[in-house]
Amino acid sequence: MELSTLGEFNLINLMTRDIVTNPAEVVKGVGDDAAVLKVSPNKWLLFTTDMLIENVHFSLSWASFFQVGAKAITVNVSDIAAMGGKAAHALVSLGLPERLSVENIEELYAGLRQAALDYNINIVGGDVVKSPAPLIINVALLGLVDPEHIVYRSMAQPGNLIYVTGYLGKSAAGLYLYQNPGVQVPESARGLVCNAFLCPRAQSKAGRLLGESRVVSAMEDISDGLLAELDKICQASKVGCRIWLKDVPVAEEVRLIASLTKNDPFKWALSGGEDFELVFTVAPQDTIKIQETLNQAGVRYHLIGEIVPAAQGMAVELPDRTLLSVPFEGYDHFTCKEKL
Amino acid sequence: MELSTLGEFNLINLMTRDIVTNPAEVVKGVGDDAAVLKVSPNKWLLFTTDMLIENVHFSLSWASFFQVGAKAITVNVSDIAAMGGKAAHALVSLGLPERLSVENIEELYAGLRQAALDYNINIVGGDVVKSPAPLIINVALLGLVDPEHIVYRSMAQPGNLIYVTGYLGKSAAGLYLYQNPGVQVPESARGLVCNAFLCPRAQSKAGRLLGESRVVSAMEDISDGLLAELDKICQASKVGCRIWLKDVPVAEEVRLIASLTKNDPFKWALSGGEDFELVFTVAPQDTIKIQETLNQAGVRYHLIGEIVPAAQGMAVELPDRTLLSVPFEGYDHFTCKEKL
Repeated sequence: MELSTLGEFNLINLMTRDIVTNPAEVVKGVGDDAAVLKVSPNKWLLFTTDMLIENVHFSLSWASFFQVGAKAITVNVSDIAAMGGKAAHALVSLGLPERLSVENIEELYAGLRQAALDYNINIVGGDVVKSPAPLIINVALLGLVDPEHIVYRSMAQPGNLIYVTGYLGKSAAGLYLYQNPGVQVPESARGLVCNAFLCPRAQSKAGRLLGESRVVSAMEDISDGLLAELDKICQASKVGCRIWLKDVPVAEEVRLIASLTKNDPFKWALSGGEDFELVFTVAPQDTIKIQETLNQAGVRYHLIGEIVPAAQGMAVELPDRTLLSVPFEGYDHFTCKEKL
Repeated sequence: MELSTLGEFNLINLMTRDIVTNPAEVVKGVGDDAAVLKVSPNKWLLFTTDMLIENVHFSLSWASFFQVGAKAITVNVSDIAAMGGKAAHALVSLGLPERLSVENIEELYAGLRQAALDYNINIVGGDVVKSPAPLIINVALLGLVDPEHIVYRSMAQPGNLIYVTGYLGKSAAGLYLYQNPGVQVPESARGLVCNAFLCPRAQSKAGRLLGESRVVSAMEDISDGLLAELDKICQASKVGCRIWLKDVPVAEEVRLIASLTKNDPFKWALSGGEDFELVFTVAPQDTIKIQETLNQAGVRYHLIGEIVPAAQGMAVELPDRTLLSVPFEGYDHFTCKEKL
């Protein structure tokens, strides 16, 4: 059985369940954006890691070393934000091919440092080893969260409303332009989406505010695409959902690029991934509180659907009220990274 | 400037100093076996990571997938032990080439699981991604330590005595046999050293006991070789040392293999690395306490030298009382891994 068969990837997921020999401190192992550890009674730890490999998760033809370094931090901060926590301490492991210059590595470190400053985290160590070919970056990140503020993916209830921060599909549109370099689009639109793809920002402040609100029932960061993240929420919470396609926020620039290149902007918005916005669910009576919180902080958000009972499954509601069950033809899984 | 020049590796070390934007919780960043974080007042966190890359740190011609998985945990547990702490929670990132079979990965997980059981730690998550060529394993490990029990590498004092646990050079002898497959040596000796190389054990219990004793002034795990680890202690503590060569413990089997293959067993013992024993320093008046502690726990140890003032440098004292300054010809840096 070779790994290249899609079915086998699911087997790997089965194997990657946590191995808990000492459960007293483990609040949550595998199965959310970060593990949750009870090291001190009123401050829990969030613990997450992501490995980025050259030509799998990033290409140095498109991204600078600075951007790669910054993104390696951002993707991990995004996981902590999705749990309602505050990112705090990182370790960075680098696998360095010999073809790299010292200047390349200085630039990589400058990107790591800038991201550490942006998110107010410490890089407290790591490992530097030789890599035979690809550049490899692994970041392990510790976050802190008040136990009252933690948000899992598993507590969404039928009747809850579904919100997203920001706008979706920018990163996927940026990837499309890099993969299709001959395409002609206005420079301002190109700049916006390419920047979203190469220099994404984690919603660290919004995640913390949503956790502190204590009324968010489930939350994910959008790394694998909106539908993939909602699928995680629905599976973990044992619910279904309806996404109102007309309400999914797609930036004007993304619509323009999609139109000029004969792409479907909603494919990018629903399945593109790597936008690193947050998708979260809230009971209707709590929406005013959430809206006030996000408005005060200047965080944009949109109401895009609702949670329904599990028996109704996941579906996207088209403007004409037609329901498309997820997964469906034409919106198959498409991500900006080629993660297993 | 290319990385392949030795001098450039030192530059990398300069760049990998920690990036501390928020110092309140950082007791120690880069510069010891693990970072030390003050998350709760009476329980500090130790945080360490190691990246292992196929054909740099291990070869699947020699090691089974099970052994690679177990060793990836062991090398990190060893770092926590060297700080006097208790390893607790790990995240495992895997970069998997497509040529691997599901059975390979099951075996790798079995090795991770066995090591987790052996050291009583939890594996609470990780990341699984596609690798273009080498198998890559990154482990990030959290440990816990009572602030009174922590042992740094920086508190050794002139007059302190230097001890090591166990016997040295086995792992280097094992590597030699794998690199020279035609060599004829007795099977029992081969078995011992090959097992030491492929299935090393971290001194987790000894590390914790030494920390709890509160009298160890400096400690390192022997991953890069005895002299390399003592060099770290001497540099961090601003001291020198004398190693009494006749007292450096070399297993009988290692002496036999060295003799049959015309190698110097002390080269393996002083510079071989990957024995994952502990080297530590103690004031003379505290040696009885340490000896009692280790004897009661059944941990073997040997007195191998003493700390001297920095001006006297690092040197190995030969049986005829000749002093060889370190680094010296013939015992140049040689490690079981090709770490940068």
